[in-house]
Amino acid sequence: MTKKKLLYLDYASTTPQSDESVAAMLPYLQQDFYNPSALYLAAKNVKNKLENYRSVAADMLQVRPLEIYFTAGSTEANNTVIHGIMSQYKDAHMIVSSIEHDSVINTASHYNNSLATVDASGLIVLTKLATIITDKTVLISCMSANNEIGTIQLIADIAKIISSIRKERLRQGNTNPIYLHVDASQSFNYLPLLPHALGIDFAVVSGSKIYGPKQTAVLFVKNGIKLDPLIIGGGQERGMRSGTENAAGIAGLVTAMTEADTMRAEESKRLLPLSKQLIEGLKTIQPNCVVNGSLKHRLPNNVHVTFNKVDNETLVMQLDEQGIMVATGSACGASSDTPSHVLRAIGLADEQAKSSIRITMGRFTTTDNIDYFLTVLEGILRP
Amino acid sequence: MTKKKLLYLDYASTTPQSDESVAAMLPYLQQDFYNPSALYLAAKNVKNKLENYRSVAADMLQVRPLEIYFTAGSTEANNTVIHGIMSQYKDAHMIVSSIEHDSVINTASHYNNSLATVDASGLIVLTKLATIITDKTVLISCMSANNEIGTIQLIADIAKIISSIRKERLRQGNTNPIYLHVDASQSFNYLPLLPHALGIDFAVVSGSKIYGPKQTAVLFVKNGIKLDPLIIGGGQERGMRSGTENAAGIAGLVTAMTEADTMRAEESKRLLPLSKQLIEGLKTIQPNCVVNGSLKHRLPNNVHVTFNKVDNETLVMQLDEQGIMVATGSACGASSDTPSHVLRAIGLADEQAKSSIRITMGRFTTTDNIDYFLTVLEGILRP
Repeated sequence: MTKKKLLYLDYASTTPQSDESVAAMLPYLQQDFYNPSALYLAAKNVKNKLENYRSVAADMLQVRPLEIYFTAGSTEANNTVIHGIMSQYKDAHMIVSSIEHDSVINTASHYNNSLATVDASGLIVLTKLATIITDKTVLISCMSANNEIGTIQLIADIAKIISSIRKERLRQGNTNPIYLHVDASQSFNYLPLLPHALGIDFAVVSGSKIYGPKQTAVLFVKNGIKLDPLIIGGGQERGMRSGTENAAGIAGLVTAMTEADTMRAEESKRLLPLSKQLIEGLKTIQPNCVVNGSLKHRLPNNVHVTFNKVDNETLVMQLDEQGIMVATGSACGASSDTPSHVLRAIGLADEQAKSSIRITMGRFTTTDNIDYFLTVLEGILRP
Repeated sequence: MTKKKLLYLDYASTTPQSDESVAAMLPYLQQDFYNPSALYLAAKNVKNKLENYRSVAADMLQVRPLEIYFTAGSTEANNTVIHGIMSQYKDAHMIVSSIEHDSVINTASHYNNSLATVDASGLIVLTKLATIITDKTVLISCMSANNEIGTIQLIADIAKIISSIRKERLRQGNTNPIYLHVDASQSFNYLPLLPHALGIDFAVVSGSKIYGPKQTAVLFVKNGIKLDPLIIGGGQERGMRSGTENAAGIAGLVTAMTEADTMRAEESKRLLPLSKQLIEGLKTIQPNCVVNGSLKHRLPNNVHVTFNKVDNETLVMQLDEQGIMVATGSACGASSDTPSHVLRAIGLADEQAKSSIRITMGRFTTTDNIDYFLTVLEGILRP
């Protein structure tokens, strides 16, 4: 069997770990393996290194180290926020955008919640959002950028609405807080995350999507906000996430964050023309194909396209036979037969959803790769 | 600064990752990094490897693969069991042994719970246990071996009590289930874990204590028992633990389990004389010192000793200055000033607790190491 050339175009699903992230991780597996809570110097040394990583992450987000918690992945972090807030308030109500990731929308479904509708481009309709906030709404979850269609939300505008609600509540004597939770897992490679400047109360960055280790994440919790911990035990992470710290994972995560932060502007600039090249190529192959999601407010690495009557699972397999890896939707939903809630929310019929694929690029994607992809795709769609 | 010889005698706190475990992990960081839920072959290949690791773990425990779940650590696994059961039953009651790990005892404290008392050797008093089981008791949590004093519980006897309660309930028409949850984190290196043979419903094995990766664990859930998931999202681990799978961690964990399983009998045999050598040496240095925990039902790697009027924190630091790492108690509790609940439970006065240290050996501990430790200790205690 000859080994065929592989072309990975599913970076939104997960990323390979970078060399630097792996290198940062390794010393904690065997050499600095000590339990950071132990009393001897070698263990305190690991604890200090962890706290140093916390400071690095905090500096990057322009927040304080005590606002940074490390969790075992972004799904856990999103659960920590939602359960941690919603369990505290009687009759609490929360709002999630209708295109949130499963880790948010499925968790919210355990509580009294309303969906914030999005327009055809995937942007939350701000005027409608304002109308579904009730006196009991304590949490609004809105991802920074969508994992399927790449639409970037106008977080600052949402924060402004929340800020005005806060003022109104103060006037009315309503003591319920109202918090903004932003899952920035998909956006961190391309958009800076500055929670204080943006008016964010909870933010999540996933290692798995930024060339860091899987099941690692940073959870930002604005100073002063109390969350009921999801995982209880020895009190690690100042009681917010018990369990012996995954020092290797934390080192790998923060190193990956630093790299992403450094490369962000250049990578965005580099990928934008590639996504244009890709969209133009798709239109040449099938002129009536439709690119989903906002073209203006969009991640530079995402192209989500609906073809005219193409079975997307067959197409993904045909591409796979040629070594090209793309997705029918989010990887999390890929195993199920349910049509994507994201595509439904932006108004696609199930038939259109089943005719759509997601192509997501990353650090190793080149213009030649896009040419190759388009050639193979053309061979499949116009044989 | 010359580098001093380091002697690690705190293996109960955490273990360095083994070479084989690291080697098993590495391919999943960069090469087989794919999201196991994706549809293309390279991803399905990772998924298959994960399922193969699940089968290996299942075979080792003589259970079925569908009874095995991978979680991000044993603290999370213990939380998953307790929250997952207790949230399902109205007015549910649970029992925990009074010497459980923080991840069990602190989680149980969120529910209606009773403590099962232990005798001076740390063994659960079975006759008393039977009396505190109520009609509403749905869960009994009892660790396989204690992390501080090394006492091994008589799990099969506890399972028998539970089995007779089940029969009684059946007669009485009480439909409440009653489950046995065993945290085997400390024992897996030295005791085989065969849940079905022992009558265990939930069992937990921690990567961090068996020379595997940190924040990885196996959770055994007996087939047919429904747990409410703690972490909700994309439905990974058959809905029990959402979040992109940590394939590297799972590979490292199961490889470490396999090694532990293979080395178990020999390691136990090798360490037993070392623990005797250690205890004899301690008695020579301070004849009135007391070894805590059962001498009969005891992990072969644990010696927990109360000295006569020694400040344990000072002693740990003095030993540390000579490169020797031991613990005052569990690492989780080390950062707090509260005396250990375990030592209180076996009847030690706080003064005695503060005069105690835990010495735990492991794969790299030799008889020469014990000699060296004893020489240094003698120099400190009898200068």
